[in-house]
Amino acid sequence: MGKQKKFVEEITAMEDNFAQWYTDVVKKADLVDYSSVRGSMIIRPYGYALWENIQKVLDGKIKETGHENVYMPLFIPESLLQKEKDHIEGFAPEVALVTHGGSEELHERLVVRPTSEVLFCDHYANIIHSYRDLPKLYNQWANVVRWEKTTRPFLRTLEFLWQEGHTAHATDEEAAEEVIKMLGVYTELCENYLAIPVIRGQKTEKEKFAGAKYTYTIESLMHDGKALQSGTSHHLGTGFAESFGIQYTDQNGDLQFVHQTSWGLTTRIIGALIMVHGDNRGLVLPPKIAPTQLMIVPIAQHKEGVLDFAYGLKEKLKNVARVGIDASDKTPGWKFNEYEMKGIPIRLEVGPKDIENGQVVLVRRDTGEKSFVPMNQLETVVTELLDDIQRNLFTKAKQHREDKTSIATSLDEFKAKLEENPGFIKAMWCGKQACEEKIKEETSATSRCIPFEQEQVHDNCVVCGDKAEHMVYWAKAY
Amino acid sequence: MGKQKKFVEEITAMEDNFAQWYTDVVKKADLVDYSSVRGSMIIRPYGYALWENIQKVLDGKIKETGHENVYMPLFIPESLLQKEKDHIEGFAPEVALVTHGGSEELHERLVVRPTSEVLFCDHYANIIHSYRDLPKLYNQWANVVRWEKTTRPFLRTLEFLWQEGHTAHATDEEAAEEVIKMLGVYTELCENYLAIPVIRGQKTEKEKFAGAKYTYTIESLMHDGKALQSGTSHHLGTGFAESFGIQYTDQNGDLQFVHQTSWGLTTRIIGALIMVHGDNRGLVLPPKIAPTQLMIVPIAQHKEGVLDFAYGLKEKLKNVARVGIDASDKTPGWKFNEYEMKGIPIRLEVGPKDIENGQVVLVRRDTGEKSFVPMNQLETVVTELLDDIQRNLFTKAKQHREDKTSIATSLDEFKAKLEENPGFIKAMWCGKQACEEKIKEETSATSRCIPFEQEQVHDNCVVCGDKAEHMVYWAKAY
Repeated sequence: MGKQKKFVEEITAMEDNFAQWYTDVVKKADLVDYSSVRGSMIIRPYGYALWENIQKVLDGKIKETGHENVYMPLFIPESLLQKEKDHIEGFAPEVALVTHGGSEELHERLVVRPTSEVLFCDHYANIIHSYRDLPKLYNQWANVVRWEKTTRPFLRTLEFLWQEGHTAHATDEEAAEEVIKMLGVYTELCENYLAIPVIRGQKTEKEKFAGAKYTYTIESLMHDGKALQSGTSHHLGTGFAESFGIQYTDQNGDLQFVHQTSWGLTTRIIGALIMVHGDNRGLVLPPKIAPTQLMIVPIAQHKEGVLDFAYGLKEKLKNVARVGIDASDKTPGWKFNEYEMKGIPIRLEVGPKDIENGQVVLVRRDTGEKSFVPMNQLETVVTELLDDIQRNLFTKAKQHREDKTSIATSLDEFKAKLEENPGFIKAMWCGKQACEEKIKEETSATSRCIPFEQEQVHDNCVVCGDKAEHMVYWAKAY
Repeated sequence: MGKQKKFVEEITAMEDNFAQWYTDVVKKADLVDYSSVRGSMIIRPYGYALWENIQKVLDGKIKETGHENVYMPLFIPESLLQKEKDHIEGFAPEVALVTHGGSEELHERLVVRPTSEVLFCDHYANIIHSYRDLPKLYNQWANVVRWEKTTRPFLRTLEFLWQEGHTAHATDEEAAEEVIKMLGVYTELCENYLAIPVIRGQKTEKEKFAGAKYTYTIESLMHDGKALQSGTSHHLGTGFAESFGIQYTDQNGDLQFVHQTSWGLTTRIIGALIMVHGDNRGLVLPPKIAPTQLMIVPIAQHKEGVLDFAYGLKEKLKNVARVGIDASDKTPGWKFNEYEMKGIPIRLEVGPKDIENGQVVLVRRDTGEKSFVPMNQLETVVTELLDDIQRNLFTKAKQHREDKTSIATSLDEFKAKLEENPGFIKAMWCGKQACEEKIKEETSATSRCIPFEQEQVHDNCVVCGDKAEHMVYWAKAY
């Protein structure tokens, strides 16, 4: 126990310093390493395996909904980025510029893509001519660069990985359907696979994507009460189409502009996974996304038969779970800590006595519960346990979010509630940007979204007292 | 037939202008589109689906051989790239440089990665300490940038996609084993999936990777008799480890440098796929890698029952092949041409008469052979046909390579043979760089590799007449 304790103390307790806890976990669980490049992280095998599992689920759903993957260039000529006015205003301050190539200065500087709307638009203008060419439902998996001043692994990095969907449709309605459909795909990924409950809603004008007609978002709540924007889906209207001349001939032979959407989800979501489920022993991973779902730790493995038995278990369980085994010469105590730190959902312990008794020990990562399971029930129990852990993580996270959601009807109450129970504040808003800005100035909370599920928690704007238009979720955010 | 003929004429015949034929095929088969970024291509859905299929096979084999995927930063500080002298000399002339970020000039310029050896080395220096930390078997899927002056889709582009493996080992022997193992993986991908026969061998000192101890390569021969380097695997020795200080403590407590390898395969291979199998009707895809293996074209589909029957066939065949159906209102002739252009291995035609007779028509893309197949044999025949097409493409390509391989024993003979039958020249070489350079100057053929399977085709160097050390494959190359 002494050794185990010591190891745990190596990470800061959440309650003492949440930011430090986060940094400790991403390092100790071998998710990332820092690199010589300011603000860029190295995603290590365990972190990348998580991203691959997320990709696999999401890519499947993107294809099921009729989208095709493509690949656009990394570089954007500066003049191309400037074609849509709102868009460039939003992104210009944070781009990286290539000025030299092959030892020569370039005639035109190249922007390293911060997002690829303009490249897709340029391509769409080339390939869309008739209503028969619509819809175009494209997606790409890529790296993008945004020049951030302060960075943190996964949450905010100079370069990050993501998928970006870009679609073109004949009508505004079809584009609107697409936007909500893809928000639904993100919701499904978050809730059913990552066990992260989300609030679905619309961004305010101030917070919407640069160049969009409107932006939908899913917002999740971290353990420390801060919110994290977890995926966004934008209706771009015809603004980009007008700037880039993306027109099609409709059934009547008339020229029309296409209606576009874009939507993206990034490696940030791994930050959410850590901060929603993690605890003071490290990561806690939902089984559906865990690279290893069950880790076998042999006890007294030097004794005859133990290792053979353990490998036999691995074979036996491989059809019901992603199973690992640690047969290294490290102590069981070291192994227990290591795989708790890595958030592996189930630990299986098996030693000479267990073999004698025809049983093994299963320990759940989420609750720490230990159970003795007879060999002939093992496959069934493991299957049920994985389901139960998945469900439990979601329920716990949802309960946590509810506990951390308050209602405020005045700005003073807003401040007090945010102070005493940091989390979401539900409050009414008149729709004026001045009131939204005042909340940010006085509380540093921002509007997260106007949720689709509206509640009339009061009649008047929480700031100015004028008649309220919407209930809004507010929070400090990552 | 008139219409069909017209369409075919839209692409240049191989014999008239091979380069133009290639450009026509990549455009007409919807593999790529040009972008506003000089030298950068847009990989369209059909081209990207090919890359995804290649990735799936290769990623599977990379993982089966014990490697883990990671992700390294896109940017490399200039000083880091300069740490290994030979390496920077090789890459400096072709890098893109980021000089500004977030509206400010950077203190140190950043290179957009042309390859990631130095980033892996920097990371390995951080995480490798003891013999217990070895081997490290990492791979990454990424985009890289090399500032090429003249570019062609897939073959040579400013930005391309690839996987790059980077490994660190305790001994020189282990690293040597890794290098040959991964060359084997590439060989398997090319020969068993892409139906591209390859020559395996070692690059000469002149042609090896910048910073490597030695480089292994697989070389394939295109339809026009030019060679294409299709994958390389480098033994890096301890050179990088010494420059970056990557040391481990061995079992005796002594400090040792690690022995490293790197190996890569790129989107170039799609260029090979096109130029090895394609013909004057367009692409010809090996079934194992074809996004769609069988395309159903209903005939007289306006007649009652035809479309229902065709969709029934799609359902029936979905377990034996990746099946598509084109039920659009385009003519069958248009569809035949379109799917021939796209290289789909089998076309299935079905009309009212076929339904009456309980049969369908299958047409092979590779030979054009047409057969009538009774419904009750369909699944078996399709399965066998796909196998047969796969085998046939490989056999044909191998035969073609053999037909285009000559032996030369003097420089005059070398020139004559290369002129009359462009392809590989097998010729003996003394090992001196001067002779290698002379061949390049006088014939524009380069040494492709010193093949593992040596033949003593002559006793003396084809250039200087001195005693020969190796038989070498030479060719003009992409």
